Amino acid sequence: MEIDIPEVKAELEDAFARYEAALVNNDVATLEALFHDDGRTIRYGGGENLYGMDAIREFRRARSPVGLERTLAQTVITTYGRDFAVASTLFRRENAPGRIGRQQQSWVRFPQGWRVVAAHVSVIADEGAA
Amino acid sequence: MEIDIPEVKAELEDAFARYEAALVNNDVATLEALFHDDGRTIRYGGGENLYGMDAIREFRRARSPVGLERTLAQTVITTYGRDFAVASTLFRRENAPGRIGRQQQSWVRFPQGWRVVAAHVSVIADEGAA
Repeated sequence: MEIDIPEVKAELEDAFARYEAALVNNDVATLEALFHDDGRTIRYGGGENLYGMDAIREFRRARSPVGLERTLAQTVITTYGRDFAVASTLFRRENAPGRIGRQQQSWVRFPQGWRVVAAHVSVIADEGAA
Repeated sequence: MEIDIPEVKAELEDAFARYEAALVNNDVATLEALFHDDGRTIRYGGGENLYGMDAIREFRRARSPVGLERTLAQTVITTYGRDFAVASTLFRRENAPGRIGRQQQSWVRFPQGWRVVAAHVSVIADEGAA
């Protein structure tokens, strides 16, 4: 199990960057395309627990596009072999001072490309904020 | 990329059950053994962001062993190929009424066995609680 094979990691960094750009721009089509379209895909969000792509789609399409901009910190992308990766990042939003978000995604390579199969987003008090 | 190969899924279910038993009993040695001992292992916890196994060990060893019992719900374990899996579960604790926890782990098979390489635990309002 080779970790962080450079060309694999580069692929994931690209996929992660596309996801992030789509998120802050509320590009729902791209966000949906980057998740694995399957009933076993799970997304635990800031305030909701979504089991299966149908539930994830319903949430995305109803989401307010306002205030999604954010600044990432301590982003770590780690690949395991050639077909699996984890992307973890902290994030802060100007409209949520004193709070820090955590986003962790599991990515799997399918014939159609890299897809998120599981994601968990949560927000806690930012101990770094005075 | 075959999903949920029965014997692989059975292995993960076993590892997940051992982890859960260790967690509620605060069996720190087993909890540590089931995480990948690596600087790239990440655990976002209920109130802390732990980067690397050293930080995770420090947290585990300082944790109060009181009130860790919990009831799981909607646990889903999904395997991707033979070397990767995601385990997601909700949990409730009697000492935290009206709150629901979410735990999501990414597992990788190493020569020494299945190990958690990334975990994210958070707690939100339980919408199912009236």
